[in-house]
Amino acid sequence: MSERPLFDIGDDRLARAAWSRIAESEDQAARLLLTEVEPAPALQWLYQHDGGGPPPGMPPSPVWQQARDRWCPRLLNLDPRRDIDVLSARSGRLLVPGDQEWPAGVQDLEDPPWCLWVVGQRPLDQLGGGVALVGSRASTSYGERICADIGFALAERGITVVSGGAFGIDAAAHRAALAAEGPVLAVMAGGLDRYYPRANADLLAAVAAGGAVVAEVPPGAAPMRSRFLRRNRLIAALAAGTVVVEAAWRSGALSTAAHAAQLLRPVGAVPGPVTSMASGGCHRLIRDGVATCVTGTEEVLELISPLGAVAATEPHSQPGLLDDLSPDQARLLDALPARAAARTDSLVRASGLSPQQVSAGLGFLELAGKVRRDGPRWRRARGR
Amino acid sequence: MSERPLFDIGDDRLARAAWSRIAESEDQAARLLLTEVEPAPALQWLYQHDGGGPPPGMPPSPVWQQARDRWCPRLLNLDPRRDIDVLSARSGRLLVPGDQEWPAGVQDLEDPPWCLWVVGQRPLDQLGGGVALVGSRASTSYGERICADIGFALAERGITVVSGGAFGIDAAAHRAALAAEGPVLAVMAGGLDRYYPRANADLLAAVAAGGAVVAEVPPGAAPMRSRFLRRNRLIAALAAGTVVVEAAWRSGALSTAAHAAQLLRPVGAVPGPVTSMASGGCHRLIRDGVATCVTGTEEVLELISPLGAVAATEPHSQPGLLDDLSPDQARLLDALPARAAARTDSLVRASGLSPQQVSAGLGFLELAGKVRRDGPRWRRARGR
Repeated sequence: MSERPLFDIGDDRLARAAWSRIAESEDQAARLLLTEVEPAPALQWLYQHDGGGPPPGMPPSPVWQQARDRWCPRLLNLDPRRDIDVLSARSGRLLVPGDQEWPAGVQDLEDPPWCLWVVGQRPLDQLGGGVALVGSRASTSYGERICADIGFALAERGITVVSGGAFGIDAAAHRAALAAEGPVLAVMAGGLDRYYPRANADLLAAVAAGGAVVAEVPPGAAPMRSRFLRRNRLIAALAAGTVVVEAAWRSGALSTAAHAAQLLRPVGAVPGPVTSMASGGCHRLIRDGVATCVTGTEEVLELISPLGAVAATEPHSQPGLLDDLSPDQARLLDALPARAAARTDSLVRASGLSPQQVSAGLGFLELAGKVRRDGPRWRRARGR
Repeated sequence: MSERPLFDIGDDRLARAAWSRIAESEDQAARLLLTEVEPAPALQWLYQHDGGGPPPGMPPSPVWQQARDRWCPRLLNLDPRRDIDVLSARSGRLLVPGDQEWPAGVQDLEDPPWCLWVVGQRPLDQLGGGVALVGSRASTSYGERICADIGFALAERGITVVSGGAFGIDAAAHRAALAAEGPVLAVMAGGLDRYYPRANADLLAAVAAGGAVVAEVPPGAAPMRSRFLRRNRLIAALAAGTVVVEAAWRSGALSTAAHAAQLLRPVGAVPGPVTSMASGGCHRLIRDGVATCVTGTEEVLELISPLGAVAATEPHSQPGLLDDLSPDQARLLDALPARAAARTDSLVRASGLSPQQVSAGLGFLELAGKVRRDGPRWRRARGR
């Protein structure tokens, strides 16, 4: 097979866009080729050679012929200019490394994308530092509620909410960020000419309007299973930290968490009822030490601010009766019967305090309104 | 004050029993005295001296007069033989260090009890190696159910369930162990002449009949707040591991967990909904790294068998459609449209596989009954 190129294959941007259609980003031969040879000369080699010789500067190997067999069928009608046009109609664009808008986070990946296809109103480099909220499509109302709470609170603070646009937790995360009118980012497994799942098309259009939708595959690429797994590394790379809100024991969200951990980005997981299968994967991540247990927005903020810029606060709790007392005073008050009155000598024996400590303590407690005299006895004061 | 002893204060057992009434186990002066001087001579010093001189062999210090002021009021009518008689009527007994039945676990404490008061049908040394299931009195039906599940399963395996006899999680733990007719142990904050809380008296009597109820304070001692906190260290020490099933952010159960951690015994905590205040303390323990996240009996067993004698197993999950396929086969099947048929050349482009890989893959998938021919095209087989 020897297709004729329909576009300027010497153009680096177009060459990268072409490669995003020709080779999956996990294709090891393509990774080697595009790392060692620039995309444009690599593409020239693919179009020009027919006999399976190695690319320029690479050693001969049967790998190259096998790779040609995979790649050449995809040269049929290949024209990245058309892909760019398709996205332009949706105010979309092609990004390549070196572009101002190219997000720094993806360069931490061992296998960064050849290029990124983006649709959205906000520049991608301004959507960094966010939190990926990911989880099961088969979410529960519990998980969706927690996701909505956290997503809203993050977006309200101007922190980008990143997710995958799927049903369940992903959709709850995007919706919450949009409700807060905060920054939001969706990372797709398939081409951006058609949003998947279709039932979320309106939601994803709103995400594009309020933030951005991004993919490493070109328009027309189907959202295949393997691409969902690859997509997860982009979610992890495009966020400063990843929180798994709800995930079953085997869930794609766990792969996002694993990618984030590999990138040395903080990972959190929200616990849930142990009776809920939908929280099983979260508990697994926590048990395995992959994720920190996070129970709310404050703890998510603490997760992504490891320098202690934010400290999770203790939830409100009722002050206890004995809270502002010294240990001896607390012991003394505790030794006083709940309803009956007691003499000083019986308080000495019951509390294990000395007579001096008991009379000093009773004086303090009387001033504090916690005990009152009742003839020669003492009793607890009512009302406090 | 100079009381006359009513019993043989030279007897070591009676002296220890007497000290359990005279001094709380957190009394630092008593700890020093009874560590350096045997209980009987220490008691002789307390009865005989009046002027505040130091105990035999100890340096002079104002501490001793202050201690006498606390301790002497409790010599009034002191007679440990009567305490022993009270418990004997309930097949109870006094244990001191060195007794066959003395539990090894408590000797790991920095501050072991002076003695133990026990009521129950099983010898205390045969109730070791158990699991403390502790938690809030204000438990939820979620926590009680999990506690019942774990408690029953542990007791069924002959593993002692240890708890504190309180309402809520404690009671659920005891009930579950009794239902399984397994070993059970309750540790009380007050004297065993009267079970506290009174509403649990029947339950605690059943615990005594099926295992044991134990306290470090003598009959008649009131269950004061400070004694509950002290009691928690005994729960931790009498179990091989502690699991907090449900606990609010501030809960006595957290002190039991802290004691277990201090004893280097494994600590687990059961997660729950982050919306439930009753699980807040559990999440806190997990976040702080004090406790391991445990979601069921298998994980509790793994917790107390750190050598891997028991490994938690993956819960059942449905095998996926692509589970027993190679990555290439899975990719190929994935590239086949859900409902439409596809030609081989379009499968080559969609899958990114070479024509050779596609035809080999289709052959395998046909044999496996996952695809079928449809003229020159291929489609997914129904039914699987």
